[in-house]
Amino acid sequence: MLNEKIKNIQPLDKNIFKQTQNRLDNLTKPQGSLGRLEELAKQITAITEKENPVLEKKTIFTLAGDHGIVDEGVSAYPKEVTLQMVYNFIKGGAGINVLAKHIGAKVVVADLGVASKLQITNDKSQRFRDKKINYGTKNFAKGPAMSKEEAVKSIETGMELVEEELAGGVDPEESRRDLYRIDIIGTGDMGIGNTTPSSAITSVICSVPVEEVTGRGTGINDKALKNKISAIKKGIEINKPDAKNGIDVLSKVGGYEIGGLAGIILAGAIHRIPVVIDGFISGAAALLAYTIQPITKDYLIASHCSVEQGHSIILKHLGLKPILDLNLRLGEGTGAALAISIAEASCKILTQMATFQNAGVSTKN
Amino acid sequence: MLNEKIKNIQPLDKNIFKQTQNRLDNLTKPQGSLGRLEELAKQITAITEKENPVLEKKTIFTLAGDHGIVDEGVSAYPKEVTLQMVYNFIKGGAGINVLAKHIGAKVVVADLGVASKLQITNDKSQRFRDKKINYGTKNFAKGPAMSKEEAVKSIETGMELVEEELAGGVDPEESRRDLYRIDIIGTGDMGIGNTTPSSAITSVICSVPVEEVTGRGTGINDKALKNKISAIKKGIEINKPDAKNGIDVLSKVGGYEIGGLAGIILAGAIHRIPVVIDGFISGAAALLAYTIQPITKDYLIASHCSVEQGHSIILKHLGLKPILDLNLRLGEGTGAALAISIAEASCKILTQMATFQNAGVSTKN
Repeated sequence: MLNEKIKNIQPLDKNIFKQTQNRLDNLTKPQGSLGRLEELAKQITAITEKENPVLEKKTIFTLAGDHGIVDEGVSAYPKEVTLQMVYNFIKGGAGINVLAKHIGAKVVVADLGVASKLQITNDKSQRFRDKKINYGTKNFAKGPAMSKEEAVKSIETGMELVEEELAGGVDPEESRRDLYRIDIIGTGDMGIGNTTPSSAITSVICSVPVEEVTGRGTGINDKALKNKISAIKKGIEINKPDAKNGIDVLSKVGGYEIGGLAGIILAGAIHRIPVVIDGFISGAAALLAYTIQPITKDYLIASHCSVEQGHSIILKHLGLKPILDLNLRLGEGTGAALAISIAEASCKILTQMATFQNAGVSTKN
Repeated sequence: MLNEKIKNIQPLDKNIFKQTQNRLDNLTKPQGSLGRLEELAKQITAITEKENPVLEKKTIFTLAGDHGIVDEGVSAYPKEVTLQMVYNFIKGGAGINVLAKHIGAKVVVADLGVASKLQITNDKSQRFRDKKINYGTKNFAKGPAMSKEEAVKSIETGMELVEEELAGGVDPEESRRDLYRIDIIGTGDMGIGNTTPSSAITSVICSVPVEEVTGRGTGINDKALKNKISAIKKGIEINKPDAKNGIDVLSKVGGYEIGGLAGIILAGAIHRIPVVIDGFISGAAALLAYTIQPITKDYLIASHCSVEQGHSIILKHLGLKPILDLNLRLGEGTGAALAISIAEASCKILTQMATFQNAGVSTKN
């Protein structure tokens, strides 16, 4: 199924970039003076194949999963925080809830691999999707994190989440609609310990030493950082992931939510929806998606450059330039939310500004 | 009058920064993980002296003026574009109109020194303020751009614009109110040729050679750039502006809209309103305001780093770090608009996120 779907990912039409630039050059501003906003407008018209894209319907997918590697002492927070934070997302108290509301986006929270059973009795927000594949990954320092089947399933689950929304998923919080179209996707993650698999994925796919892509995550001390680096090295040595095979890398050193995010990203490319990727974990998912189908990267917008040191290596590998540099390292989709608003602004520039002719403004001497 | 008002500018209370950081550290996220958003929240609580600032009422002041220095062939666009763009602002077709609407801000457009008389017959938007001081500055390559009295008046006019809004200025576009409070200010400019006085101001106040602070503005060729540099050098040589005296610099090599923006900035500091400065021209105005009262800089938020090369020198001189790096060089307040939305988000983080205790989330190990 996965392979069939991926065949639908098409390269962007370079002519649309040119046509959009011509239109931008007729608007009442010096040519090119809106810099990266103009680049974003071109990319989004090419992705959507719409002359006048409107990014009204924004959906941020925040996927959760736990990690067996936490047993190696790689995280500053206890494992149960993943579960607790999912409840926080559902109640609307987390950073991503605040920032998504700020930009008018819907948050879809899905459990792909939280280590305990969630007790959702009353999800008034209708944000939550139960897509549990397993109760956390295995400790990849001792063997594969998950089976190949589970790796494929996590990617397919991400695709399914997008398809369910497209097919008329749950109403957004503030505007009741029968059908919820998605104009732009944001990716986000929650999973105590998940910078560790992300560092492993980055080291393998980008061929960079583990030390260079491993940071302090939520804020570990020197000893835990040493543990983290040695656990990742051990995991790569034992599992021997094949850098050219995204599914193999995912199954050996990945995580359920990371696979899910790779699926979200691939689904964006399949359905011609721009995907704004968040920080380091979303970046690792983008690497997996890119390994599976390299064209995918043309559908991606990098939101920000995380404090987590491996993230800039990922962005360089994918040839993406982040929109924001705010020293963020929270995840959840928080950076994606802020960048989605800027992407939306870029489309409004294209579609709402007056031309030199309409406004009666003289052009360049 | 100016000196009396400036006495009201007070340093920020460092205790408020600490108190706000403590509150941020209790929210459900790793400490410091929202990076610059946390810094912004601290600065804004200290500026406003409000525990829970809400940046609902956003006003961007876009000031217009013409420049005699254009006679030296320093700009790519003809002088009449200043006037034409003011009409475009009033009709709502310019970049700043689109971006201000996107973030929910009001735009106040004022003529401080446009070279011709504006014929405003029907300003339905009620955006326009006629504050003309003179019909463009004189060519500062041949003598002072304006008189000392006009320099003071331009600064006072900027202050007046803020005060008029605070006293119940015109209704914002989309919410009818009798009294329009200002929670945050954005600065913007329109003036063909105004990167030239801005480069002169920057060179003088920052003590940097003219070549290092002079760029291509709206897109001039090599020959015009040479003209521009030599005109600025001549202007500084003839006028001998006193780097320590903002009014002297403004009168000799400045512009009416630049003086007006300095007044807006000072008024922000006087009334404890955060001021988001736009690009190079707003930066030059900030330098003038800083020279007049150095404490002012604590009230400033740098929105972006312009392509115009002098801008980064200004930001360094003021010790400000821009929020965005989007290769913008349009002015009008466009960069300020995008950054205002991020400043607003930072306050929502502080006021809307759940604490560890409320959400039942475990803290660090």
